[in-house]
Amino acid sequence: MKLIAMTLASLSLLTSSTAQATEARDDVRAVAPALEKYKQDILFGDLWKRPGLNPRDRSIVTLAALITRNQTAEMPNYLNLALDNGVKPSEISEIITHLAFYAGWGNAMAATTLAKAAFAARNITADQLPPASPNLLPLNEAAEADRAKRVGDLFGAVFPGVVQYTTDVLFLDLWLRPGLAPRDRSLVTVGALVASGQVAQLTGHVNIGMNNGLTQTEIGEALTHLAFYVGWPNVFSAMPVAKEAFEKRPQP
Amino acid sequence: MKLIAMTLASLSLLTSSTAQATEARDDVRAVAPALEKYKQDILFGDLWKRPGLNPRDRSIVTLAALITRNQTAEMPNYLNLALDNGVKPSEISEIITHLAFYAGWGNAMAATTLAKAAFAARNITADQLPPASPNLLPLNEAAEADRAKRVGDLFGAVFPGVVQYTTDVLFLDLWLRPGLAPRDRSLVTVGALVASGQVAQLTGHVNIGMNNGLTQTEIGEALTHLAFYVGWPNVFSAMPVAKEAFEKRPQP
Amino acid sequence: MKLIAMTLASLSLLTSSTAQATEARDDVRAVAPALEKYKQDILFGDLWKRPGLNPRDRSIVTLAALITRNQTAEMPNYLNLALDNGVKPSEISEIITHLAFYAGWGNAMAATTLAKAAFAARNITADQLPPASPNLLPLNEAAEADRAKRVGDLFGAVFPGVVQYTTDVLFLDLWLRPGLAPRDRSLVTVGALVASGQVAQLTGHVNIGMNNGLTQTEIGEALTHLAFYVGWPNVFSAMPVAKEAFEKRPQP
Repeated sequence: MKLIAMTLASLSLLTSSTAQATEARDDVRAVAPALEKYKQDILFGDLWKRPGLNPRDRSIVTLAALITRNQTAEMPNYLNLALDNGVKPSEISEIITHLAFYAGWGNAMAATTLAKAAFAARNITADQLPPASPNLLPLNEAAEADRAKRVGDLFGAVFPGVVQYTTDVLFLDLWLRPGLAPRDRSLVTVGALVASGQVAQLTGHVNIGMNNGLTQTEIGEALTHLAFYVGWPNVFSAMPVAKEAFEKRPQP
Repeated sequence: MKLIAMTLASLSLLTSSTAQATEARDDVRAVAPALEKYKQDILFGDLWKRPGLNPRDRSIVTLAALITRNQTAEMPNYLNLALDNGVKPSEISEIITHLAFYAGWGNAMAATTLAKAAFAARNITADQLPPASPNLLPLNEAAEADRAKRVGDLFGAVFPGVVQYTTDVLFLDLWLRPGLAPRDRSLVTVGALVASGQVAQLTGHVNIGMNNGLTQTEIGEALTHLAFYVGWPNVFSAMPVAKEAFEKRPQP
Repeated sequence: MKLIAMTLASLSLLTSSTAQATEARDDVRAVAPALEKYKQDILFGDLWKRPGLNPRDRSIVTLAALITRNQTAEMPNYLNLALDNGVKPSEISEIITHLAFYAGWGNAMAATTLAKAAFAARNITADQLPPASPNLLPLNEAAEADRAKRVGDLFGAVFPGVVQYTTDVLFLDLWLRPGLAPRDRSLVTVGALVASGQVAQLTGHVNIGMNNGLTQTEIGEALTHLAFYVGWPNVFSAMPVAKEAFEKRPQP
């Protein structure tokens, strides 16, 4: 299917973005004219323009949501929009790599096929991608020691494999890759957690995110944005958890 | 991909429903003959014929489940079955519109592509669709004021965007669109919540649904139906929540 | 779409597995070179070789995860790997049949289309499949009576349909089909529960699985394996539940 998916992706490049947008609008008009109105008035007429989270960050959150939910049909448009909104190709590469671990390996694989087509259409070449093994960002050793001890105490005896990989692959490697700022990795992670309904992990990642520079306003706007892209129920499950994380956070 | 998805959808129309059903049966026979037996004996031989929820309502619940889980491969057959079972094209249009907000924007977009093909195959035209901006149903102002206050008190200070859109877009607009009865919107919403495992919101929507005219028997049968279409685990997570909502509901 | 899906599946057989692997690697290199490194060093260089769960069982868990999440793009490769790792065609057939009930009917339907292509490419014929109605394994009547009473007491009055089908279709039929050992059905079920985030059902199925012969080490390794295929958050939600189930289990 990989070959076919690639062929389809290549074929889709024969049509311009404008033509694609027209086709999508025609689909909507032939089925649900109200969706076209909501799209013009609310989604792109209001949501994407709200202050509190800039369009680049909204694109990052949207890609995180689509990749986490494996929604390949929408990805080409939103990959293009992300590039238009200033998300760098190297950052898209790292978002996909990050989500291999936070959404699942297959989600990342499906996204690479579509990102390859989006990159090719803009003549984005391999030298614009992050290397496989870059020099890593410096580690916050105290915070990592604390995290590793906490997780190790809880799960080390029963799930040694998960605990080891969490340290070695995620926190000593993935999170330290310099191609995506830690603050942006947190935005991706929060998006993935809300998109997959895994709000139990949200408390920890709201705190990591705010340590990494995300503001409460930005997280609040990310959830507002996600309501449209992952559905209201996921966001209503996330809000009480995020709110409690905000309230319990030590005042600066 | 939009163009390609459309092309595929159009190509699929070249085969009759009968041919498609044969192909699907051949797939199953070549891999899992037991599934064909379960389909004949249990699914269509028993489940769809159970009293307590009529075939039209079962079609609505099934579409809600498939769209919420983005299961596009099954949608053409079940869109056709829904039309056969008396779900109006205008109602399918509104089900998709409703799920843009309860399952996610991309889920609705993927469904429109397939519904467009299903509609075209039956010569269903734009005049059979609900207008983008219809005259809305009257609002139950007391109930809405109560809901808005409750949600506003909980989340208004921290997530003002979500709270505002929930009022303006969902409860003062979407739920009041006349193309789908409030009772049917509740059926769609319950289906979406169970299909996505978001049972925390089920308490509220069981109550809204029963206020809108759904009976306990119908909700119970909807969960029975969903066990087959979204898997047993989602339904076993939903049953204790729905049961408690039934028990706590004020007696009439 | 069924026909189209089949056509695509057939077309994909025109390319050899080697060619497909090359294409996939090219996609990854053109987007996220780090993923290729993680795949070589961690995924296939380490995870799949870990003791505690053999490659055949890892293939079963991976298929359960992919089918539960409807990740059709990855399925052809992992169906082939499963056959290479010694999962029998009859067992793949039963895994798909089992997941019709634990992941949802449409998930099983999508998997049959891809398994048909994988089987055809190896000249696997219908006589290698389990019959629709085999002689069933003997029932553990005491355990089933206990389970039926517990579920009936909880939900029989409110959800009689779910309770009846759970007994008749799942525990008196599906679980007793001899084409997949009960221990392997438990591995599939645990995989499905973690993959769908339905950890509330995990307590019961960890116990059933250990009664069926799964060891704590194997379940622990299954969760380690799943971290990569369904994402870290699902596994971090599953670990406390599985750990508690281990701790509360009566000592032998």
